[in-house]
Amino acid sequence: MKRLVTSVISVSALALNTAAFANESVMKGQDNPKEWVIQAGNYDNTRYSKLDQINQSNVGKLAPAWSFSTGVLRGHEGSPLVVGDVMYVHTPFPNIVYALDLNNDGKILWKYEPKQDPNVVPVMCCDTVNRGLAYADGKVFLHQADTTVVALDAKTGKVDWSVVNGDPKKGETNTATVLPVKDKLLVGISGGEFGVACHLTAYDIATGKKIWRAYSSGPDDQIMVDPEKTTALGKPVGKESSLKTWQGDQWKTGGGCTWGWYSYDPQLNLVYYGTGNPSTWNPKQRPGDNKWSMTIFARDPDTGMAKWVYQMTPHDQWDYDGVNEMPLVDQKIDGKDRKLLVHFDRNGFGYTLDRTNGELLVAEKYDPAVNWATRIDMDKNSPNYGRPELVKKYSTEANGEDVNTQGVCPAALGAKDEQPSAFSPKTGLFYVPTNHVCMDYEPFRVSYTPGQPYVGATLSMYPPEGQSNMGNFIAWDATKGKIVWSDPERFSVWSGALATAGDVVFYGTLEGYLKAVDAKTGKELYKYKTPSGIIGNVMTYEHKGKQYLAVLSGVGGWAGIGLAAGLTDPHAGLGAVGGYAALSNYTSLGGTLTVFALPD
Amino acid sequence: MKRLVTSVISVSALALNTAAFANESVMKGQDNPKEWVIQAGNYDNTRYSKLDQINQSNVGKLAPAWSFSTGVLRGHEGSPLVVGDVMYVHTPFPNIVYALDLNNDGKILWKYEPKQDPNVVPVMCCDTVNRGLAYADGKVFLHQADTTVVALDAKTGKVDWSVVNGDPKKGETNTATVLPVKDKLLVGISGGEFGVACHLTAYDIATGKKIWRAYSSGPDDQIMVDPEKTTALGKPVGKESSLKTWQGDQWKTGGGCTWGWYSYDPQLNLVYYGTGNPSTWNPKQRPGDNKWSMTIFARDPDTGMAKWVYQMTPHDQWDYDGVNEMPLVDQKIDGKDRKLLVHFDRNGFGYTLDRTNGELLVAEKYDPAVNWATRIDMDKNSPNYGRPELVKKYSTEANGEDVNTQGVCPAALGAKDEQPSAFSPKTGLFYVPTNHVCMDYEPFRVSYTPGQPYVGATLSMYPPEGQSNMGNFIAWDATKGKIVWSDPERFSVWSGALATAGDVVFYGTLEGYLKAVDAKTGKELYKYKTPSGIIGNVMTYEHKGKQYLAVLSGVGGWAGIGLAAGLTDPHAGLGAVGGYAALSNYTSLGGTLTVFALPD
Repeated sequence: MKRLVTSVISVSALALNTAAFANESVMKGQDNPKEWVIQAGNYDNTRYSKLDQINQSNVGKLAPAWSFSTGVLRGHEGSPLVVGDVMYVHTPFPNIVYALDLNNDGKILWKYEPKQDPNVVPVMCCDTVNRGLAYADGKVFLHQADTTVVALDAKTGKVDWSVVNGDPKKGETNTATVLPVKDKLLVGISGGEFGVACHLTAYDIATGKKIWRAYSSGPDDQIMVDPEKTTALGKPVGKESSLKTWQGDQWKTGGGCTWGWYSYDPQLNLVYYGTGNPSTWNPKQRPGDNKWSMTIFARDPDTGMAKWVYQMTPHDQWDYDGVNEMPLVDQKIDGKDRKLLVHFDRNGFGYTLDRTNGELLVAEKYDPAVNWATRIDMDKNSPNYGRPELVKKYSTEANGEDVNTQGVCPAALGAKDEQPSAFSPKTGLFYVPTNHVCMDYEPFRVSYTPGQPYVGATLSMYPPEGQSNMGNFIAWDATKGKIVWSDPERFSVWSGALATAGDVVFYGTLEGYLKAVDAKTGKELYKYKTPSGIIGNVMTYEHKGKQYLAVLSGVGGWAGIGLAAGLTDPHAGLGAVGGYAALSNYTSLGGTLTVFALPD
Repeated sequence: MKRLVTSVISVSALALNTAAFANESVMKGQDNPKEWVIQAGNYDNTRYSKLDQINQSNVGKLAPAWSFSTGVLRGHEGSPLVVGDVMYVHTPFPNIVYALDLNNDGKILWKYEPKQDPNVVPVMCCDTVNRGLAYADGKVFLHQADTTVVALDAKTGKVDWSVVNGDPKKGETNTATVLPVKDKLLVGISGGEFGVACHLTAYDIATGKKIWRAYSSGPDDQIMVDPEKTTALGKPVGKESSLKTWQGDQWKTGGGCTWGWYSYDPQLNLVYYGTGNPSTWNPKQRPGDNKWSMTIFARDPDTGMAKWVYQMTPHDQWDYDGVNEMPLVDQKIDGKDRKLLVHFDRNGFGYTLDRTNGELLVAEKYDPAVNWATRIDMDKNSPNYGRPELVKKYSTEANGEDVNTQGVCPAALGAKDEQPSAFSPKTGLFYVPTNHVCMDYEPFRVSYTPGQPYVGATLSMYPPEGQSNMGNFIAWDATKGKIVWSDPERFSVWSGALATAGDVVFYGTLEGYLKAVDAKTGKELYKYKTPSGIIGNVMTYEHKGKQYLAVLSGVGGWAGIGLAAGLTDPHAGLGAVGGYAALSNYTSLGGTLTVFALPD
């Protein structure tokens, strides 16, 4: 009898350590505005903080409180986490993780430095960035460039478990964060420029054991869709919905990578994420819609099965990856409360969907420069429902191989790339860091060799004709699909935004400024020049009763690849330098955390 | 008649561009507290600024105003310069120079990046540091690691002239700044750990043409002493004063390097600097006093001839280079106005001399831990006048080769190294960043091969027994040879100090703090944690009516070589890691300029 009781208690404790606890620690952390436990701050990816000590009236007095050099140069994407009295900071390759003591101006409590084969660097598409850590259940999770996923003991930095998610020799690498959901860790992968067949994988948070893996393209069982139950714009996707849209075996090298942000609705028990470009960038070489590249997926995290899908850019011709964040908000549309998913796609359209079923509610341009499509067909009875209405002049498919299609807006890096937006429930507005960049795009034929670039296009990028600003920081009404205000910036705003209950919105610029603007009007209230260009995301936390802001500076990423990789030819690589060459007049490589506070 | 007038004007203009102007521009710059035109701020190397906007009562409100990443990691010694609206910032190897626009938060006006053979790095003794630029006459002067001296047009960054001062293949490198004096640029050289025969060279400031070169050891004509007129402690040095103190040809590989700071008295027309260790570090291998290593030189900058010399550590047994700064102050001693030269030597003694003639006035320990000598013999009638009274237990010569002499204080890096002190005429005190470190030293026999290390000793370094602080920031009365107050620091204070008319003294710490203390009491008034450990020197300037402070952070130098070179063995290299290994708990590599100001 006694043994039985003991046994029951053990099972219960085990359950707490896995399924129940992992999710709860994130839920608890995201509900506590003093902490910042996952990259987006919260599961709904709104990057909103209830902290309001720093507000419109006092933000002008903000000043750096302390700073920390990561010891690594090149592009610093993502942000630190804060759990209790400890800040966790990550770096680009070689992906060092620091635990810093908030009670002691960032004294180093522990440091984790993986040994990674440096040969992974040339296989990374667009700088050596990493979009950061996630915390759950006493563990800090890191997905390294070489695709090793490690769970570190948050107290000691010791590796609890590690698992290999891909093979850099095949072009499989990582730049993304991971998302702990319930008893699982959701993990994506990069390699769309190397013909990788990409996927989302769920690992057991306690052990690292693989639970399920859902590919973006391929047979139904591999992409984990149910032909009858999984819907696209309200209709079942039908059998082999992906395979039918590829020529022959091309789906096996089809990209659809999963290097963006993942959001989660605990009530609906659905995880949302997007897939990237179909490989190669040369559209002539891969006829068909190339499903489910460029697609929003809603999946059940327990089973991995897709509930609904929506492909934004069928048969991509411009590298408009669909991986940008999927903030989840509840707003009224036409007077009716809706559970929304909002998505600012690389293709320049801001989409608002019903996240319960994938119904398309709004799709409007969030950069007036967008010209590759006139609109998204919103007619439910149209055969083209939900598809973009293309402009032939800017169709690289129509113009064909070895023809330079000029003046396409946005450029390949999109009207927005990975830099996440923020949303304030107080204003009901989204705050979106955008690119304002066009391109020339010339596709050419390539053949697939594992681990070799499989790009198939050259491009150059520049601001829209007659304009000098390569970026705007905008406020967007997702219920109407309208820009409310727009602050021009010299370069793309490649930093993630933060909205707070202080009615201030924060973001960084490629020149290196941290800026604070009025959430209602966009009026600049504060700026400070950090050591290097900012491509990291602004976060906030409270420590000992005081609100702090933190941001990584360290120029790089796709926009800063010219500086980061020392390219001097403005047309080299992925057209990365282009109009961004002037960045070198403003900033140099760096890798610094700056923490801000109001003076005592 | 008209032609003659024109001609006269031309000659006059030419003169202004060379001899007259070069000196005048430095004189003008150092007299203008708004600018900072040479590394020490002024010719007398007091690192004192008349600016007083930031003072004891408001320094607690100081905050970073803007920052700038240099794009280079490892040790950042020296400081920026400010001339007009432009700040000039240098980096460690590869010795990039930036001109930053003070009207625009440090926008980059131009960048000079030399192409240097990376093979110079392994030949550099103690990190890839560079102690910075000098400005004169519209030119910015840089002495690169590879010993190339360049004169850059201050407006454009274009190379006006360049000259090669040494050969890295022979171990000749550079870490020092240069000093423009009249129509000449004074340039030293490093390589004491490679058996370099070191020298000070004067180049024509307008053309780079070599004017004179004075070696530290060798025949009278090469060391530029006059046997009758050059004095040591009041007596003529006599014929071949150097050659007589070396065995055979050993002076040809005898070190005596000139990598420290140079000061200048325009009234006396004398330049002051010190020479480094005799090579090798194994004293048994080089009998004799090894003159004029470890020596203060006073030279006429026009002719190069030495007026007087003083050897502080004859026949060095501990690597106590004599290159530290030589601040020039006028103070009363025994009620009498004296023109003084003060020098905090690596050997742990603070020397006060009459700079007109080299008379030794005061010589006292400025670190109580110093134990290798009991005192300096001050008896003018003693045969040992001016020499240290050695303690046999700590004599690595007496203990001999392959014997580990333990507990010698200070360690090889001295009670102070290159980190320059400051002096306030308002308090009459020197503010000295010190090391508080002892060592074990084991000499061994080496043979000389050009370009190969010629060190001849291994060592390990640690704090004095029973103590945990490896540094102190002290106030020193040079007229009495007494410590007035002493602030303990966890690590050596490897940052140059700044004293201001605001009665505040500033310095940086290896953990990365910029600190402000009360000039009278040493009480801490402000601290801020910069991104990385500070081994740079604090400077100040005024721009648009507002006082700013600036300091480079970027841990490294000898104290930080363990971090900078990624050494993990605490006994590796030149014993560099030792007690400094704990630095990695506080800071990481960096390279950032932080500019401070009071809030508006």
